[in-house]
Amino acid sequence: MSLVRARGELENRSGSTTGMARAVKAVLDLRDSGEVRGILGSMSELCTPKDSRDEEALAYAMGGGMNSIVVRDDETASQCISWLRRNKAGRATFLPLNRLQSRRPGGRSVMVSRQPGVVGFASDLLDYDNSIELAVINVVRDTLIVESMDVARRHMGGVRMVTRTGSVVEGSGAMVGGSTRTNRPQFGGKMAGSSVVEKAEADVDR
Amino acid sequence: MSLVRARGELENRSGSTTGMARAVKAVLDLRDSGEVRGILGSMSELCTPKDSRDEEALAYAMGGGMNSIVVRDDETASQCISWLRRNKAGRATFLPLNRLQSRRPGGRSVMVSRQPGVVGFASDLLDYDNSIELAVINVVRDTLIVESMDVARRHMGGVRMVTRTGSVVEGSGAMVGGSTRTNRPQFGGKMAGSSVVEKAEADVDR
Repeated sequence: MSLVRARGELENRSGSTTGMARAVKAVLDLRDSGEVRGILGSMSELCTPKDSRDEEALAYAMGGGMNSIVVRDDETASQCISWLRRNKAGRATFLPLNRLQSRRPGGRSVMVSRQPGVVGFASDLLDYDNSIELAVINVVRDTLIVESMDVARRHMGGVRMVTRTGSVVEGSGAMVGGSTRTNRPQFGGKMAGSSVVEKAEADVDR
Repeated sequence: MSLVRARGELENRSGSTTGMARAVKAVLDLRDSGEVRGILGSMSELCTPKDSRDEEALAYAMGGGMNSIVVRDDETASQCISWLRRNKAGRATFLPLNRLQSRRPGGRSVMVSRQPGVVGFASDLLDYDNSIELAVINVVRDTLIVESMDVARRHMGGVRMVTRTGSVVEGSGAMVGGSTRTNRPQFGGKMAGSSVVEKAEADVDR
C-alpha cells in the first residue's frame, strides 16, 4: 500500500473529514481526564446488540446516533460544545438525560411490528443500562428492523423501518440506501475497518 | 502544499470518505444521462436562502438533508438504491414526492417563533419551487433560526432550533454543536471549500 493511500485511509478512519468522530474522541478524552464531569459516553460504547446477527441493521437504525454522547444534563452539553468550538475540535451531538423527552411508540408501529417479515423494535434488540433508556429511545425512536425492502415498502408511511441490509425507510416517507459504508461506527466505540487503519499505520511506519 | 495533503483534500471534498457526496453525484449523473427518469435534484440544488446572511444557519438547519435527492416516486427511489448497491457507489437519501407525509408546525414552535431573539421558520427563509414543498418541510420540519444558544436553551423542549453559528437544539432535547465544518454542503449543489480543491488539483497537476 502506498504512503499516499495509507495516509488517506488513516484520515478516513480517524474521521478527520467530517470532524465528527474526532470531536467524539475529544469529548471522551475530556471525560477520561476528569476535565469535564457528567459525560457518560457515546451510544456506541453504551449499547450492544443482544444478537450479533442484528448488528448491521441496528447500526443503521442508530445511524449517526451511534456517535451521540450521553451527558447528565444540558449544562454539561453546553460546556462540551463551548470547549469544541474554542478548540476547533469538531462537532458532536449530546443527549442530556435531564432534558430528553420520552416518547411512546406510534400506534401504527406497534401494529406493523406484528406483521410477517418484521423482526422487532430496534430498542428491544439492544442491550443497555436502564439509566440511559431515554437516550436509546431518542436515537432509535420506534424504528422496526424488517427482513427486506419489499416488507418496508409494503408498510411505509408513519413508521421508520430498517432492512437487514441497512436500507432505511423513514416514517416521513424518505428512503435511504445504497452500498454499505466501510467506515461506519461500530458497537464498542470502534470504527469498522480499524484493522485497515492498523495495517495502514504499520505500512506508514515502515 | 504537499502531494499527500493535496490528495487528502481532494478525497475529503469529493466525499469519498463517507460515500455520501459520491453517491449523490452518481445519482445526479443518472439524471443527467437520462438513464433514470424522475430524479429532480438534490435539496442543495433546489433551494436557496432568500437572504444570504441566513446561509450558514439554514445549511445547519437542513444538515445532511442538503444532500437528500428529491424524486418523483418511491419506485424511482427504489431503482436508484438498487443501482447504488449494484455499483457499490455509496448511500443516499431519497425524498419520493408521492409518499412524503405533510406536517404542520407544532403549536409550541408557532408560539416560540414570536419570541425575541427568534429569526423565523427555516422554511420561510428559503426560496424554492412550490412543487417540492413537501420535500422542504420534510427536511427542515418546523426548525426555527434563533440568534444564540441562550435563546435556544430558554425555549428548549418540543421545538427544533438552530443558532446563527450553527448549533442545533433538537425538539427531543438533543444538542449539536462545536466548531464549524469546513467541508459542509453548500447551496447551489457545491461543497464549501471547493476553491481549496481547485487549488489542490492545480498543485497535484503541477
